[in-house]
Amino acid sequence: MIRKLFFNARIFTPTSQGNVELYPKGYILVENGRIVSVGEMDNRQRLLLDGLHEIDLCGATVIPGFVDSHTHSCFGATRESEFNMRLGGKEYLDILKAGGGILSSVRSVESLSEQELFTISSIRVNQMLVNGTTTLEIKSGYGLSTELELKMLRVIDRIGREMPLDIVPTFMGAHAVPPQFKGNPDEYVNIVINDMLKAVKHQRIAKFFDVFCEEGVFSIEQSRRMLNAAAASGFKLKIHADEVHSMGGASLAAEVGAHSAEHLLAASDEGISAMARAGTIAVLLPATALSLRKPFARARKMIDAGVKVALATDCNPGSCYCQSMPFVFMLGVLGMNMSGDEALTACTLNAARAIGKERDVGSLEAGKKADFVVLDCDSPAGLAYRLGSPVISSVYKMGEAVA
Amino acid sequence: MIRKLFFNARIFTPTSQGNVELYPKGYILVENGRIVSVGEMDNRQRLLLDGLHEIDLCGATVIPGFVDSHTHSCFGATRESEFNMRLGGKEYLDILKAGGGILSSVRSVESLSEQELFTISSIRVNQMLVNGTTTLEIKSGYGLSTELELKMLRVIDRIGREMPLDIVPTFMGAHAVPPQFKGNPDEYVNIVINDMLKAVKHQRIAKFFDVFCEEGVFSIEQSRRMLNAAAASGFKLKIHADEVHSMGGASLAAEVGAHSAEHLLAASDEGISAMARAGTIAVLLPATALSLRKPFARARKMIDAGVKVALATDCNPGSCYCQSMPFVFMLGVLGMNMSGDEALTACTLNAARAIGKERDVGSLEAGKKADFVVLDCDSPAGLAYRLGSPVISSVYKMGEAVA
Repeated sequence: MIRKLFFNARIFTPTSQGNVELYPKGYILVENGRIVSVGEMDNRQRLLLDGLHEIDLCGATVIPGFVDSHTHSCFGATRESEFNMRLGGKEYLDILKAGGGILSSVRSVESLSEQELFTISSIRVNQMLVNGTTTLEIKSGYGLSTELELKMLRVIDRIGREMPLDIVPTFMGAHAVPPQFKGNPDEYVNIVINDMLKAVKHQRIAKFFDVFCEEGVFSIEQSRRMLNAAAASGFKLKIHADEVHSMGGASLAAEVGAHSAEHLLAASDEGISAMARAGTIAVLLPATALSLRKPFARARKMIDAGVKVALATDCNPGSCYCQSMPFVFMLGVLGMNMSGDEALTACTLNAARAIGKERDVGSLEAGKKADFVVLDCDSPAGLAYRLGSPVISSVYKMGEAVA
Repeated sequence: MIRKLFFNARIFTPTSQGNVELYPKGYILVENGRIVSVGEMDNRQRLLLDGLHEIDLCGATVIPGFVDSHTHSCFGATRESEFNMRLGGKEYLDILKAGGGILSSVRSVESLSEQELFTISSIRVNQMLVNGTTTLEIKSGYGLSTELELKMLRVIDRIGREMPLDIVPTFMGAHAVPPQFKGNPDEYVNIVINDMLKAVKHQRIAKFFDVFCEEGVFSIEQSRRMLNAAAASGFKLKIHADEVHSMGGASLAAEVGAHSAEHLLAASDEGISAMARAGTIAVLLPATALSLRKPFARARKMIDAGVKVALATDCNPGSCYCQSMPFVFMLGVLGMNMSGDEALTACTLNAARAIGKERDVGSLEAGKKADFVVLDCDSPAGLAYRLGSPVISSVYKMGEAVA
């Protein structure tokens, strides 16, 4: 059994009780990668724990490893040229309609070997790890055929097996309507329900099912059919809801018992109330709003309505090429008026809840994995204070330094 | 004579003619650190230039070195705890009134030796260099007494002599009213005019004079008196204008013939028109607006009115601890709806104009210093595309790799 004692740390962590705890001279006792206890060090305790492998954190600030609960970080080519088009005034949904956007990433996934897709994605994921992310959701959805979706999920699964992060794979065959089904999207919906869901279930990699419910993509009714079918197949549910147009996606998430609804830039008051009643987590993606030059989601309104809010990068090649949870934290406090405690909880514990991992990660509490980040600043707010400069000193996964 | 040919570069540069030029297979010919010529490489030219020291940039994107035209980057302690107070709802001007803010940085400058202040500041400036800044304005203003202002300016001057950036020193004794003059700010104004200006002029380091014209700091009338006196002493002028309250600072800048007016979050339509007529550069500081949770300055309105707009970090320990021009570029295009070309010009050539250095730096044109940045992306827009991650590959000052 490997026992480690990290001590002399300024520990900030959200807790299951709903507060953010600060241990100014804190310790974390770890056994085989799991936290045995965490708290304030006193001399007596110091003595009792003598003889362990001890790591002095020299007064540094420590927070839980970031949980990035919404990403499309498995992809091939970047799409900087489209970004230039958007800066020139083109709309994201227009680029998609014209065969760019998601469809261009599908061509890229198709053209790469599985090994190439793994290599390019793992380099990207490593940058996220360096930025403090220790648990990561990754969606498929640049395949849009049974074969390519399964290929993506195999690559996502391999990232989880070969890299020191926990990966949560999400099946998102319903990310866009492939061009060959343009006149008849319902036919594609049927394929997702009757063919893809079965194959993906049989593959046993994906834990979640997600759908892009949006004008010009999948309607509320189409989304509902797929979500109910996915739930019946044993998938947990997520929805890209009310990102551009207010369509009732938030209410649908509440109705079908989704774990989370994501984006929500255009979520209605009714949708927010429905999420609060149903306990649906709101996964907000402020870097995407910024990158699309749109107003941020109404985080304050949601928090005040009792909705648990998570923050995520949405890392993808089109609408938001962001690999940095510190950047997202910064936008949470400065762009969406969240408090430092709210943003910390949103980037860790609530994010873990959004992907069903709150028993394992998301806070520094007994029983959870010893995943944490050491910061070069005095408090979590330092992530936003030093604008545009890194403050991550080191990253630990299950008690091991990994970055 | 040292001659270098940088070739096979994808060069983007603003020009004196007002456009942004792209040389897809470009070269830069450099003699003793200055650009002899820049342009598109053809075979003939390639042959003529044979025998030089040649550097293949392998198709990488190249832009001019950033010119950061407004910073307070010479300071001692950071002020993260105040940032936490601001996140908790405290206003910046209230913190200043309570003896925090600028006044706390004054105590820090006072407590450090000149060597200590140099060391801590040069580490900070080095981070700016790594982020692509090759020319940097630094203001005094954490002294607020003749002795301490001269001490700051000596440190700023030493940074310019010992580090590979061009430094433009600005005297800003009029940064705040020291506590001992609280009941009688005019007495301090008199000291600035009658004592400090003379001593600073005699020291021969500062090129510019700057004043914080704001409610609770210096009034329009006090600012005008100091600016006119500084102009009479041979200083070029800058104004912190209309940052929080619309006081007519922009119009004052136009009236006194200032090189630039800075901040301008609350600048009126009249002020903008006056600046356009007078040719006053608008130095906008979007990271400060973000950090203060305020709306950005109206960059589009200013550009459309014919005002030349520059972007700068405002690097300081209180309202905006930002050392990254790429971050500021990103906010320019995504937060203020500037085009990629406008933001590039704002971070380079217009910024050089704001500090009177447009003959030397700010664009890749014959006669100027060979200051440039190599980017790991396809175009300047890549600085904003990859949100929160670095895209700077290397930095050249006068043709030498410095980061």
